Amino acid sequence: MTNLVIVGSVALDTVKTPFGQVKDALGGAATYASYSASFFTKPAITGIVGIVGKDFPNQHLQLLQQRSISTEGVKVDNKGKTFRWEGYYEYDMNEAKTVKTELGVFADFKPQLPGSYEDAEYVFLANIDPELQMEVLRQVRKPKLTLLDTMNYWINNKRSQLLEVIKNVDVLLLNDGEARQLFETPSLVKAAAAALKLGPRFIIIKKGEHGALLFSEGSHFSAPGYPLENIRDPTGCGDSFAGALIGYLAKNGTSNEKDIRKAIIYGSVVASFNAEDFSLERLRRLTYAEIEKRYGEFKRIREF
Amino acid sequence: MTNLVIVGSVALDTVKTPFGQVKDALGGAATYASYSASFFTKPAITGIVGIVGKDFPNQHLQLLQQRSISTEGVKVDNKGKTFRWEGYYEYDMNEAKTVKTELGVFADFKPQLPGSYEDAEYVFLANIDPELQMEVLRQVRKPKLTLLDTMNYWINNKRSQLLEVIKNVDVLLLNDGEARQLFETPSLVKAAAAALKLGPRFIIIKKGEHGALLFSEGSHFSAPGYPLENIRDPTGCGDSFAGALIGYLAKNGTSNEKDIRKAIIYGSVVASFNAEDFSLERLRRLTYAEIEKRYGEFKRIREF
Repeated sequence: MTNLVIVGSVALDTVKTPFGQVKDALGGAATYASYSASFFTKPAITGIVGIVGKDFPNQHLQLLQQRSISTEGVKVDNKGKTFRWEGYYEYDMNEAKTVKTELGVFADFKPQLPGSYEDAEYVFLANIDPELQMEVLRQVRKPKLTLLDTMNYWINNKRSQLLEVIKNVDVLLLNDGEARQLFETPSLVKAAAAALKLGPRFIIIKKGEHGALLFSEGSHFSAPGYPLENIRDPTGCGDSFAGALIGYLAKNGTSNEKDIRKAIIYGSVVASFNAEDFSLERLRRLTYAEIEKRYGEFKRIREF
Repeated sequence: MTNLVIVGSVALDTVKTPFGQVKDALGGAATYASYSASFFTKPAITGIVGIVGKDFPNQHLQLLQQRSISTEGVKVDNKGKTFRWEGYYEYDMNEAKTVKTELGVFADFKPQLPGSYEDAEYVFLANIDPELQMEVLRQVRKPKLTLLDTMNYWINNKRSQLLEVIKNVDVLLLNDGEARQLFETPSLVKAAAAALKLGPRFIIIKKGEHGALLFSEGSHFSAPGYPLENIRDPTGCGDSFAGALIGYLAKNGTSNEKDIRKAIIYGSVVASFNAEDFSLERLRRLTYAEIEKRYGEFKRIREF
């Protein structure tokens, strides 16, 4: 049975950084998130929900299947092309600059969960139209923990629909800029307090190389960033973070704050590896032993 | 005997933020640093070395003296005016914008340590001309720990002199932008490695609201930022951080990494209080019990 459902884009990315480039490489939020979750979820099987075109290489789906990820929820639409994103990073690597976006079949994406996904207890709604995210929530029967991501585009263009879906999830994930923008305050503390009032039990604010913050009613956690010597491509780090985080929770069948703190560190660990190479290259070489080793380093760098 | 010497500016600041303003208020790196050190240093007496003009209110010197800070090293030059800085912060509060700087008597500052300061074991060289910082180092006989701060102006205009003084100190303090600029790399890990090669045993990189990093040979520490709900004026936070840090070390007569990690947290605590009000207003109301309470919160926000 599929216990973790991840809904979002499956894409072909063309990316350039000061350290190299790739063309039409495997990408997309749901891809990064499900692959990252797969380090933790066996035997709690992950199902991915997305859409690709006739041009999507079958080997990419096989790659996910080899990680025990169900691709039953990935629709292959032979009438169009796969979602493509082209972008680049400048020297500081903190912000992706988009050159172009070709939505292709993703423009008509209507997420439809296979029957075997409907009893999943863990759900990650990666960044898509908040109305579609709401549609997915209606299709899961008894979720134990729902995690929501978004982006500034939806804050600008579908604010009320976004606020509506936020009211219906357990954990809201934002980066620091989005948190300030959505709640119109420079203070992340005030933004988190406003977000908690809407309904979620937990607010996670991602700060890139500076780590992440967790806010709940009356409590706060500050996760360190990992000091990477060589960053080659940060694409997919946010989604790797979210996928590993919810994968860890799904594996352990938990949703309490103590475990969410640990899950945030596992998310940070997998995201830090992801940045070391293009596309999913580093994740494909990554072992669970490496994850545990770096988790130990995260413990040591904050001891005082 | 004066066991901690702090050398730097004593100033009158005119500051505007979205939350208020002050005119000709007490400021300056050496002022913030010595006041912050005074929470820790009794009975290890702190001496301040600086220069002020005939217009400097005597009550400001008395304020420092009441904290057991020796002002014997502060020269009063009746021929000119006190150093004045005018600046403002915009909504995000991360960067000070300078409106004007009037050096006054500070233009001819030649730091001269009183005889009773020459055996001090702890020295903080706040941001001044690196040639003057080198002069001070020549005047202390047997320092146990020397801490150096600087700014982008000296990186641009006196790079070789700055590198020379870096070679002669134990701890180098930089903010993240300065570290990237001085060592010409986007990677803070590489910048810190390059800095360690020059001579210092420890490199501390300040990241404002994101906390601070400590690098030594083969080790790394990540200190969290404190999630402040109300920031009124960040002026002097970097100097409060440095002053509390070296004050804690001077009080305990130590310079090992374990204690430097703790000292960084004490520095972060005092800096976080300093941001809550203009000039030294919050520090003047601050109690040691409040410092210890927030130190405990810094521990809790790190637990996983």
